[in-house]
Amino acid sequence: MDAVTYELIKESSDCSGRLGIIHTPHGTIDTPVFMPVGTQATVKGMTPEELKYIGAQIILSNTYHLYLRPGEKLIEKAGGLHKFMNWDRTILTDSGGFQIFSLSSLRDIKEEGVTFKSHLDGSRHFISPEKAVAIQNSLGSDIMMCLDECLPYPCEKEYASRALGRTIRWAKRCKKAHIDTEKQSLFGIIQGGMYKELRERSVSEMVDMDFPGYSIGGLSIGEPKSMMYEVLDWIAPLLPSNKPRYLMGVGSPDCLIEGAMRGIDMFDCVLPTRIARNGTVFTSHGKLVVRNAEYAEDFLPLDEECDCYTCRNYSRAYIRHLFKAREMLGARLATIHNLYFLIKLMEKIRQAIKDDRLTKFRDEFYIKYGYNRDNE
Amino acid sequence: MDAVTYELIKESSDCSGRLGIIHTPHGTIDTPVFMPVGTQATVKGMTPEELKYIGAQIILSNTYHLYLRPGEKLIEKAGGLHKFMNWDRTILTDSGGFQIFSLSSLRDIKEEGVTFKSHLDGSRHFISPEKAVAIQNSLGSDIMMCLDECLPYPCEKEYASRALGRTIRWAKRCKKAHIDTEKQSLFGIIQGGMYKELRERSVSEMVDMDFPGYSIGGLSIGEPKSMMYEVLDWIAPLLPSNKPRYLMGVGSPDCLIEGAMRGIDMFDCVLPTRIARNGTVFTSHGKLVVRNAEYAEDFLPLDEECDCYTCRNYSRAYIRHLFKAREMLGARLATIHNLYFLIKLMEKIRQAIKDDRLTKFRDEFYIKYGYNRDNE
Repeated sequence: MDAVTYELIKESSDCSGRLGIIHTPHGTIDTPVFMPVGTQATVKGMTPEELKYIGAQIILSNTYHLYLRPGEKLIEKAGGLHKFMNWDRTILTDSGGFQIFSLSSLRDIKEEGVTFKSHLDGSRHFISPEKAVAIQNSLGSDIMMCLDECLPYPCEKEYASRALGRTIRWAKRCKKAHIDTEKQSLFGIIQGGMYKELRERSVSEMVDMDFPGYSIGGLSIGEPKSMMYEVLDWIAPLLPSNKPRYLMGVGSPDCLIEGAMRGIDMFDCVLPTRIARNGTVFTSHGKLVVRNAEYAEDFLPLDEECDCYTCRNYSRAYIRHLFKAREMLGARLATIHNLYFLIKLMEKIRQAIKDDRLTKFRDEFYIKYGYNRDNE
Repeated sequence: MDAVTYELIKESSDCSGRLGIIHTPHGTIDTPVFMPVGTQATVKGMTPEELKYIGAQIILSNTYHLYLRPGEKLIEKAGGLHKFMNWDRTILTDSGGFQIFSLSSLRDIKEEGVTFKSHLDGSRHFISPEKAVAIQNSLGSDIMMCLDECLPYPCEKEYASRALGRTIRWAKRCKKAHIDTEKQSLFGIIQGGMYKELRERSVSEMVDMDFPGYSIGGLSIGEPKSMMYEVLDWIAPLLPSNKPRYLMGVGSPDCLIEGAMRGIDMFDCVLPTRIARNGTVFTSHGKLVVRNAEYAEDFLPLDEECDCYTCRNYSRAYIRHLFKAREMLGARLATIHNLYFLIKLMEKIRQAIKDDRLTKFRDEFYIKYGYNRDNE
């Protein structure tokens, strides 16, 4: 049996939302789920215990970064990524594709694979589908990704079509290269840009290959949100209901809700941790920039409705002081809060699916959060 | 009764070491004690819970920094420093004197007080003995310091003598300005450079004023360690045995032991946290620079004999990776370890005093730590 399996618990009657459990070699995950990102084998500023306190059941780590530093062979020697970073719950790794296309300066895509320059020292590297699998095998993540070609936005249909063809052929090579499917599960990635025909072809080909899970890539890269939702509306009904669906790189509160309404089970994004380090936090009433002067003498917690460690113990004035004084603790406290906020949001989404009221939940959330879809 | 009192438990028979308990409005402190430094109302990178886990009973915070940012009036509005930073155990604040003399660019010392330029924005400020007390009253620390004039090393005797005269007069003004002695205790500071006559005069004058505790300033500022120990040998016997003695700015393992052997009860230093953030840690066998390439594939803990959170869960290779990747968690893990190491060392020192074997403990520690007094 595959390392990772999906158990469908309930489908919404008011939308395409679904409640499920993902079983993995390192525990179970209640879905829909948000996965904090630990790019370099650490979720920036957090210990594993803090992530558990926040309620994280799964984290993501980046193959591209770990391959370059400290190197997957070192992590393998350490006993794998779980042991190296002291995280005994589930880990998902990406294939490195997205970072090769977004971070490295020069890249040369051939049928065999991609040659690229490291963003760290300019050194040249070559990654093929087989190598992407081998690296992730060394890391020992529970969920692996196929190497894919990531498109810019906007992108001509002809180019998107050729890239998709390559992504499909690479997926076949990845699947072939991955041997121990009982230890780690390899997900296929749906690409095809903003073109319905290509997305449908992508789903059809990937589903034919029978992956234990499907990722949706190439979204949240600059297109309007309405377009992203349209793409999800095309894809979700075509995917098998007994496999998990992962929307890559998406993590704003509104997108998490809209994604869940379209049947997405897994999300990840650096946004909540990145904005936290810059002093911006989510609250029940929208975003708050705690660095701002208006909070200098504000002794309320970041979010009065939040019961996270940060909100129970610290004021906006103190956290602002930490940011102004460039003290690490500021980034830590804001990160704890933002991750807690999103993980609590996912809990509420799951409860709303259970109660068949996810659409209503969304509408209420938007009003309170001050979010206007028309302004996107 | 004074807010802070000292209870002498036992005196060493093999040296001048002593075991005691300091009672404060925010709990008791077993002495000799090492106090982590929370310069800007935070021990860099640590939460209060982590400090408690490490075993910290008291921390130090800096009046100069808090006065400049966020301002003591804001902290007073927040309910005082304890509440502002979420630390319910004892806090000691310095007077700001040391930072005025070491950090601010321009300073003008007059009998009335010191005018100086902020190291943050160059703005001009004036602090008198009365103002130093008022600021610390606003902060609400348990233990306050008198404003003193800090000397450079080396320093002419004549200058040192004049500065001492001023420090004594300032101490009298501080004592007069501090009203609520049941809420906060004000310590006098012994100065006098490296001159026996001046140090003796300083002790005599301060003891006449009957402070609830005495700090020893102007040491560990560049003089040879043997000279510091000599000064301590002059001072300690002259101080009343029923008051705590605090050696300011000292925190290397050898100095903690030597200081304890000379009857010092309290120590503070930024060294252990500062070197931790640069990737240097204490171990049972001496310092270790975990950033170094030799630890790239070293899967041992920082110190094999340590049972701190860091050593129980992470390898040198992982911590080195965090430093190389500039990940905050590296500084956090190293800081936890270094503070734990020193606080455990103080525990061992207290046990050695209890067992009347502090001298033997020192000799054994030096051999294992690879410390050679002759190389200083």
